[in-house]
Amino acid sequence: MAKINYNYRKLKQDYLFGEIAKRTTAFSNANPDNEIIKLGIGDTTLPLTETVVAGLKDAVEAMGTDEGYRGYGVQKGQGELRKAVAQYYKKTTGVSIDPDEVFISDGAKSDTANIQGIFAADSVIAVQDPVYPVYVDTAVLSGKTGENNDGNYDGIIYMPCGPEHGFFPEVLSVHVDIIYLCSPNNPTGTVASFEQLQSFVEYALKNNAIIIFDSAYSFFIQDDSVPRSIYEIERADECTIEISSFSKWAGFTGVRLGWTIVPKKLQTEDSKPGELNAMWERRQSTMFNGASNIIQAGGLAVLSDKGVEESNALAQYYMKNTHVIRAGLENIGIETYGGEHAPYIWLKVPEGFDSWSFFDELLNKVSVVGTPGEGFGSQGKGYFRLSGFNHLEKVQEAMKRIQANFDFRK
Amino acid sequence: MAKINYNYRKLKQDYLFGEIAKRTTAFSNANPDNEIIKLGIGDTTLPLTETVVAGLKDAVEAMGTDEGYRGYGVQKGQGELRKAVAQYYKKTTGVSIDPDEVFISDGAKSDTANIQGIFAADSVIAVQDPVYPVYVDTAVLSGKTGENNDGNYDGIIYMPCGPEHGFFPEVLSVHVDIIYLCSPNNPTGTVASFEQLQSFVEYALKNNAIIIFDSAYSFFIQDDSVPRSIYEIERADECTIEISSFSKWAGFTGVRLGWTIVPKKLQTEDSKPGELNAMWERRQSTMFNGASNIIQAGGLAVLSDKGVEESNALAQYYMKNTHVIRAGLENIGIETYGGEHAPYIWLKVPEGFDSWSFFDELLNKVSVVGTPGEGFGSQGKGYFRLSGFNHLEKVQEAMKRIQANFDFRK
Repeated sequence: MAKINYNYRKLKQDYLFGEIAKRTTAFSNANPDNEIIKLGIGDTTLPLTETVVAGLKDAVEAMGTDEGYRGYGVQKGQGELRKAVAQYYKKTTGVSIDPDEVFISDGAKSDTANIQGIFAADSVIAVQDPVYPVYVDTAVLSGKTGENNDGNYDGIIYMPCGPEHGFFPEVLSVHVDIIYLCSPNNPTGTVASFEQLQSFVEYALKNNAIIIFDSAYSFFIQDDSVPRSIYEIERADECTIEISSFSKWAGFTGVRLGWTIVPKKLQTEDSKPGELNAMWERRQSTMFNGASNIIQAGGLAVLSDKGVEESNALAQYYMKNTHVIRAGLENIGIETYGGEHAPYIWLKVPEGFDSWSFFDELLNKVSVVGTPGEGFGSQGKGYFRLSGFNHLEKVQEAMKRIQANFDFRK
Repeated sequence: MAKINYNYRKLKQDYLFGEIAKRTTAFSNANPDNEIIKLGIGDTTLPLTETVVAGLKDAVEAMGTDEGYRGYGVQKGQGELRKAVAQYYKKTTGVSIDPDEVFISDGAKSDTANIQGIFAADSVIAVQDPVYPVYVDTAVLSGKTGENNDGNYDGIIYMPCGPEHGFFPEVLSVHVDIIYLCSPNNPTGTVASFEQLQSFVEYALKNNAIIIFDSAYSFFIQDDSVPRSIYEIERADECTIEISSFSKWAGFTGVRLGWTIVPKKLQTEDSKPGELNAMWERRQSTMFNGASNIIQAGGLAVLSDKGVEESNALAQYYMKNTHVIRAGLENIGIETYGGEHAPYIWLKVPEGFDSWSFFDELLNKVSVVGTPGEGFGSQGKGYFRLSGFNHLEKVQEAMKRIQANFDFRK
């Protein structure tokens, strides 16, 4: 008889965004005249740029002609696009990537989840706490964990990220197999330094561990003081898979396009260099049919000189919003973190509040919606995330309301 | 230390299409003046239709405006598109589907692979032989099989499909958990009758097994004598997940869009009705971020009245090609199957040949490329697939050459 995958029953309900929606709707129904401003989600709001729209339209039109029509493509992505990604790395980080190490996908979320499948089913996974839930939930669904106790799953190593090291974890003292790192970080908006990444690369090389590095927010980095790619660290290509995305940079959250780099030098103790690259290619060609060729044309437009310029302008717009939020919060005595190289502010909720009571306070008093930090893990308790992904006028209005109604200065 | 998923080492090399490409390239290099005609692959060749191009372009343009821009969508797909899929079922099959049972994806391939993950890791899988390799390879990668011996994996139940039952298997006499069925069938181009599908639904209900029904070719069915959806069989919604695709019908092989239906009545002995539907939703929202909103607009255009008409015309074009192939082969005494409700001809290779020597014969004598049947499983030995996916003139030219050079009549 067919049986279900019981790991699904271990999975905690996706409480966070459901609960936010529930409380927001209840407030909205009770106060229909209040304009609610959402600074809770990490979703882009600005339209696709001119160059990207043109690239997508050209591709659509070509697909309507005998000469331009294309059917199945290479599952790992069009050669031209993989080359453009490699060139972008060279230009922005100095790092050399072989286009054959680049795999185009429908987004970083799928890849951060699916990548676990090329490693042993009983791999021990370490994650930052607070954490983007996909890394953890995928480990649960594939049977790598025990039950959930007080918010944490048995079998996962949670690496606490508090203010003492800029919300980046200290290097592990226990042995793990796979380490997820995300910098610039979602949800904290903070970044890892060269030294911090280097400490993890050294750990991975010494312990034969693999790092999965999520760099989806790297386009918000403002200067060269911060690594944009983990491959800027020497020998990281022997132990790290890097996953990135067009989503937040070019407004592709609904358009869907990302990439994953599996270096040919990458290896485990039980595999040869190149084998993991070939395994990921086999995974993608067996279980995926490539990203849409129309959307890949959009990605190529993003990576053109003009596309990069326009996409960077989008990123700067959100960063300006983020600075408005930070300045406003600091004015009223709220301690903030992040927001310098990422469009998120991670704030310490004022005394007398916890994550959820502060959520209610902002919603009820000024109709602003944010995200309670504890939704991202136990170390997020007492913190709160505000996002720069909105229109500037809305962000300004939100901060005006907050400053007019609150003062937590001592 | 990190370890690889050793199941990858069990996986047979993707020999078939690699070997075809190798032999074709060698021939082409040796005979640069010969025009090779490819009737081997199942890839669409006609451009996207007018209505679809317009739908896609409108969506791209909207994404370039403040009012029309959309970020993340619902992971299971836009409500309007899910409703349109349900309405299409109602109209063409009379079957009632709740739009909440419809999940939009980036294609049937991903779904036929990923769906295994909501069932127990040790599920016993049955497949038709010959078979679309994705079902099998996914079972291998997720550890459901032993080693490969003589082309077949230990632990998989292969259901032989020969001419005696129209290339559809007899219902199983052993117990299995999950059964993949594909009708109209790739590679044989044959279809299951109502009675044949009913026998499997009865088996599944009696044995608490789950059927995964791949109906990606249903749009080529010519009349109501053949079931387009397995849900035309009573109580199939208690035991079947149906997976389909815009690929072959609307020319979306490179565009990427499909759907999966997980009925709310579906259950296993260890789950309640609705639980599998909720699990698939959780799988998709955890490990996938929805199909591209631009491409979903294209799907909606396909399902408009005009879009359906145009897409059906594409399908009929390929069916005409298929009829040309069949008539030509029969003229020279080759036994053919399929090709009535599907764009594939499954032919018995003439006496004195096997699958591969017949491949070489066609390539060397008339520069036509087909697919050796044994690439799809041991029961494909002695068979050969020709596909109607090409331009009519090329198909006609190929058949002219074949008829001028061969005669296998006795």
